[in-house]
Amino acid sequence: MTFQSLLHPKSIAIIGASQNPQKVGGVPVRLLTELGYAGEIFPINPGSTEVQGHRAYASLAEVPKSPELAIIVVPAVAVESALRDAVDAGVRAAIVLSSGFAEVGGEGAAMQQRLIDIARDGGLTLLGPNCLGVMNLSEKLFATFSPAPLAGLPKPGSVAIVSQSGAFGAYAYSLARAGGLGLSHWVTTGNEATTSVADVIEALVDDPDTKVILAYIEGTRDGCALQRALLRARVANKPVVLTKVGRTEAGARAAMSHTASLSGEDNVYQAVIDDTGTVRADTVEQMFRLGQAFSLCTPPRGKRLGIITISGGVGTLMADAASEAGLELPPLPTETSRALLERVPFCSTANPVDVTGQAASDFSILDFAAVEAAVSGSYDALALFIAAAGAAPGYAPKIINLVRMVRDAAPDIGLALSGIVTPELRRELHALGCLVFEEPTHAIEAFAQMSQWQAYGVTDEVTAVQAVPQSLPTGLLNEVEGLAFLSSHGISAVPHRHISSSSAAADAWHELSSNLSNMQAVLKIVSRDLLHKSDVGGVRIGLRDEVELREAAVAIESTVAQQAPAARREGLLVAVKLNPRVEVMLGARHDPSFGTLVVVGLGGVAVELEPRTSVLIAPTTPQRVRDRLDALGILNRLKAWRGQPEIDAQPLIDTVVRFAALAAALGPRLRTLEINPLMVGNSFVAAADAVVEIAS
Amino acid sequence: MTFQSLLHPKSIAIIGASQNPQKVGGVPVRLLTELGYAGEIFPINPGSTEVQGHRAYASLAEVPKSPELAIIVVPAVAVESALRDAVDAGVRAAIVLSSGFAEVGGEGAAMQQRLIDIARDGGLTLLGPNCLGVMNLSEKLFATFSPAPLAGLPKPGSVAIVSQSGAFGAYAYSLARAGGLGLSHWVTTGNEATTSVADVIEALVDDPDTKVILAYIEGTRDGCALQRALLRARVANKPVVLTKVGRTEAGARAAMSHTASLSGEDNVYQAVIDDTGTVRADTVEQMFRLGQAFSLCTPPRGKRLGIITISGGVGTLMADAASEAGLELPPLPTETSRALLERVPFCSTANPVDVTGQAASDFSILDFAAVEAAVSGSYDALALFIAAAGAAPGYAPKIINLVRMVRDAAPDIGLALSGIVTPELRRELHALGCLVFEEPTHAIEAFAQMSQWQAYGVTDEVTAVQAVPQSLPTGLLNEVEGLAFLSSHGISAVPHRHISSSSAAADAWHELSSNLSNMQAVLKIVSRDLLHKSDVGGVRIGLRDEVELREAAVAIESTVAQQAPAARREGLLVAVKLNPRVEVMLGARHDPSFGTLVVVGLGGVAVELEPRTSVLIAPTTPQRVRDRLDALGILNRLKAWRGQPEIDAQPLIDTVVRFAALAAALGPRLRTLEINPLMVGNSFVAAADAVVEIAS
Repeated sequence: MTFQSLLHPKSIAIIGASQNPQKVGGVPVRLLTELGYAGEIFPINPGSTEVQGHRAYASLAEVPKSPELAIIVVPAVAVESALRDAVDAGVRAAIVLSSGFAEVGGEGAAMQQRLIDIARDGGLTLLGPNCLGVMNLSEKLFATFSPAPLAGLPKPGSVAIVSQSGAFGAYAYSLARAGGLGLSHWVTTGNEATTSVADVIEALVDDPDTKVILAYIEGTRDGCALQRALLRARVANKPVVLTKVGRTEAGARAAMSHTASLSGEDNVYQAVIDDTGTVRADTVEQMFRLGQAFSLCTPPRGKRLGIITISGGVGTLMADAASEAGLELPPLPTETSRALLERVPFCSTANPVDVTGQAASDFSILDFAAVEAAVSGSYDALALFIAAAGAAPGYAPKIINLVRMVRDAAPDIGLALSGIVTPELRRELHALGCLVFEEPTHAIEAFAQMSQWQAYGVTDEVTAVQAVPQSLPTGLLNEVEGLAFLSSHGISAVPHRHISSSSAAADAWHELSSNLSNMQAVLKIVSRDLLHKSDVGGVRIGLRDEVELREAAVAIESTVAQQAPAARREGLLVAVKLNPRVEVMLGARHDPSFGTLVVVGLGGVAVELEPRTSVLIAPTTPQRVRDRLDALGILNRLKAWRGQPEIDAQPLIDTVVRFAALAAALGPRLRTLEINPLMVGNSFVAAADAVVEIAS
Repeated sequence: MTFQSLLHPKSIAIIGASQNPQKVGGVPVRLLTELGYAGEIFPINPGSTEVQGHRAYASLAEVPKSPELAIIVVPAVAVESALRDAVDAGVRAAIVLSSGFAEVGGEGAAMQQRLIDIARDGGLTLLGPNCLGVMNLSEKLFATFSPAPLAGLPKPGSVAIVSQSGAFGAYAYSLARAGGLGLSHWVTTGNEATTSVADVIEALVDDPDTKVILAYIEGTRDGCALQRALLRARVANKPVVLTKVGRTEAGARAAMSHTASLSGEDNVYQAVIDDTGTVRADTVEQMFRLGQAFSLCTPPRGKRLGIITISGGVGTLMADAASEAGLELPPLPTETSRALLERVPFCSTANPVDVTGQAASDFSILDFAAVEAAVSGSYDALALFIAAAGAAPGYAPKIINLVRMVRDAAPDIGLALSGIVTPELRRELHALGCLVFEEPTHAIEAFAQMSQWQAYGVTDEVTAVQAVPQSLPTGLLNEVEGLAFLSSHGISAVPHRHISSSSAAADAWHELSSNLSNMQAVLKIVSRDLLHKSDVGGVRIGLRDEVELREAAVAIESTVAQQAPAARREGLLVAVKLNPRVEVMLGARHDPSFGTLVVVGLGGVAVELEPRTSVLIAPTTPQRVRDRLDALGILNRLKAWRGQPEIDAQPLIDTVVRFAALAAALGPRLRTLEINPLMVGNSFVAAADAVVEIAS
């Protein structure tokens, strides 16, 4: 699929063009004509020889050349034949604005499938159906029936909007116009018969006019394509700010009834967002703010923020927000602090730096503090708060001068100004690469998100997907086989022995306890038919000597035989009872849309009441695993505590990375791969259970 | 203290008045003169007979009458004598704008203390020092040296702003002007020598012009006064939207260096906020938005929200936000749903109701859906999303008509419209009591906060503070005494026996186990000198028969004697080991500023790593306790789970209420009152430990 003809067409046919500029078939002709599209326009209308001043054609076949793009606005039942005509006429891309396809189900869905076939066979790029179309602001391409462009155009710029929902896209367009955000492209994908938001993102990665992408999705049928597109955008240093709705059950239900999108588990989308360095926005304004921030300002290279304020109160509020957003607030260097105190005796030179209201009468105090902070090397970004000075008479030149001086002194640091400013001043500050917010905490939000985006490890190597091992055990393994399989792929099990019957219990005890004092043992029935062994009396814990062990073995053998007579009994597993600091659970599954996914979480009973898990795309990197373990509070639990030493997290991280690599290697053959619990202690990371099933 | 003379003075003396309207002493004279203050103005300046067109006086003594209010703008060292003059002249209230007092420490603090003494002895209401003063918008009172009013005035209205920080107050003032928020009063309290934000809030509760109060604090020296003021405001149905900064360590540090405010533990302030039905705002814009919402619209009577949207995507986003904010989204009644489907075949009639873009061509669809939803009785509030229609030509009358119809049909429900609207349309909609937001989720935020405010139980009776029991055990009690003390106040202990030595262990076992099968016992040394009994081998758990118990008792006696020879040994405590579903910790302390506070949280080891606790003001109510237990996840743990039945939460709630009542009754005599753990199970709520210390 090529998107050149969709995004940059030199000529356009409108199939279903109307003389009436109010009608759905008339709007695109009007927009292209009135708003200055420079390419050729071919209205197709069997009943007219002229449409809105353009020569019209009864059919595409009569057009003297091949239009590059066709806009199709005929009733649903006529779309199929129109699309066929387009293919026959050599059209390269088609936008189907008409609705009445998959979103109404039944015959609509069948018609949509036929459009897919025609487009594929004809090598034509198809957008829609049931979409609001495309705009290219610099080329004045308005291939849409949205009336929004008639109310005014945003300036051409470097931000693209890609939205599955037409109305959401139109609203974002209106906000961009109102907020002065420069747009490159605007694309809505509707039913996504063939072209998805992910496809358009990927096309925009190669578009030189686009530097930042704002995307809205309700769901995706191809999670891997979404990952690929987002990752390519990140590697190309084009930030994607993504709004994914359906986070909650109520939202997912709403999305379902809107575009029949299965919005899917939110934590899977969150994994895609985290693992591809994508920025998530949960509100329309936030999406817009972050898009604007990325388009105006180089992301700070780190998390060190300097706050300079004329109000100690607002400075405190900003410090709260910065701290909660994970930014650091290093103090001013001592020299700078001393110099500032000489100029403003009552100011606070900690961070926030409070130059006090004195700046109102002597603005150069603010200049001094900001420039000194900027050149100190202590900060990656500066957030200034100037209250209402930006709207007070006579202050605009002072503020512009301040921002110029900071920019000249330190061109690479992030810079934001909060307060009330006039629209003109805002534009001038934007032109200087300075963000402007009325709400002071929005500067914090922007820098937090931008520095996190910046910190994404583009060069982190994901563990290479190993080839599937030649001789793979297939089917559902029993626990002993499962632990052995994991072991052979670098994931240790708790020390254990497999015995065929209770008579071998004593030997197992002696082998396992030879280097241990005060060993306790765990004893389990081995049977691939029993997933919940304790339910049939198949598990005993805390066995303190060989006698207890042998008695327990005899008891298990008879109880299980009685309670689950049909289950294969494959001996007994004697394991050392470890004393872990943390129990972790690891699971993996192969998702037809998203590929291999790993779930990591805290193990243990309390967690079943409040599950806390995080999803990773497999294979993964140590950094991603570390971030997730940190967010789950697992790293925290490994720290020194109550006289117990800190436990090195690296072996756990390595184990999760290996687990993910193994799961990815199994690919679609992976049925179940689960360790619960994985015991993490002072000198061990060991699987204490394993469920493994591999398709043949 | 009376605030009439501060908020509504009929005459004002400006001590330190300057001829130069740019100077600090000249600004108030200029503002009062130019902006139309109707009372008398008496500039005091020893060197002039005229100041900015007013007759000036060399001293207050020369003024022919007693000015009601004095604004003092002389240097810090001269304030003391100026204030004395004011008292002598019969002035009722003074605003000290001068700085250089407690905020600079040392002699400044001593001077401030002398101001306090003069004001108290003279019966004068003192605001400041180091504050930005007072405004009363309807009376054109501008007793401030902030230049903000020169840039324009907000309209007079019913919202008051009270801020400890002058610059924050000035910024909020500017936002109010820019956002069209009508103000009654604007008061900044600065160093709060005598008059605090709480005092001003309490005064505004009695002010008929004020309906909503926006307050900003960094900390308070009198937590009880803050509670009282907020509670009085809530009972008077005047919402207070409070910004309390210093939530984080970084913020608290910043506040400390700003106004030397000890911002204190945030969870104590959160308790005050929760227990008084106060609304918390964490950003300037949020404070402003919520203040505006409360001033325009009656709070919804419940949590049932109807979302009506022309964009399914934005509807989904709003549903996510509503669900996360704890609002309910009941579906349209079947009748309404059917009728709507007849008019708009492809619309979604679930909630969100998506009338689709068809509303652009036929606006009456939206009218129909909104009015039907409003009269259905299914919703307490409606949030409409109309994208950019509010800025499109010709739509304003349609939108006003829509809002009128909904208001007429259901005058009492909350109504908000999101989308882009022109400033004129916004004003008209506000006049109709319809909230307007550009960001759709802000409508959700407003209704969530308003309905929560509404749900506050004004009539909930807090348990009456009991009289302190006549014969109170004093000093640090040992565990047995502590459990007995709790028992005598209605808080059960686990079944236990106090024995003097190991020789009585067997008897204790038999007494305790007489009605129990499979009892296990816990054995502890009793000693008021040992807070950490297990550290000296003083605790044994899981004792399974009288033999184990006796052996353990002998062992504890000898180990403790050896490891803690100086500790008084007061026998042994034998307790039944219960098997609780949840372990809760309860603590209480008497805070000199906030009064008696109770801390409730999850008990157990995992929680020490991630403490989750909540504070309650004592005494308290069952509803408040229930809300806290819910937020802590404790109620969730009592639900039916894994085949175990649901546990009734009421006995636990009652226990916490009794604990709080007891703590409050002890008042300042309370040193320590702690239960950890409180065992909660299927048929018991029982203290398994107690630390009690009461001052004599």
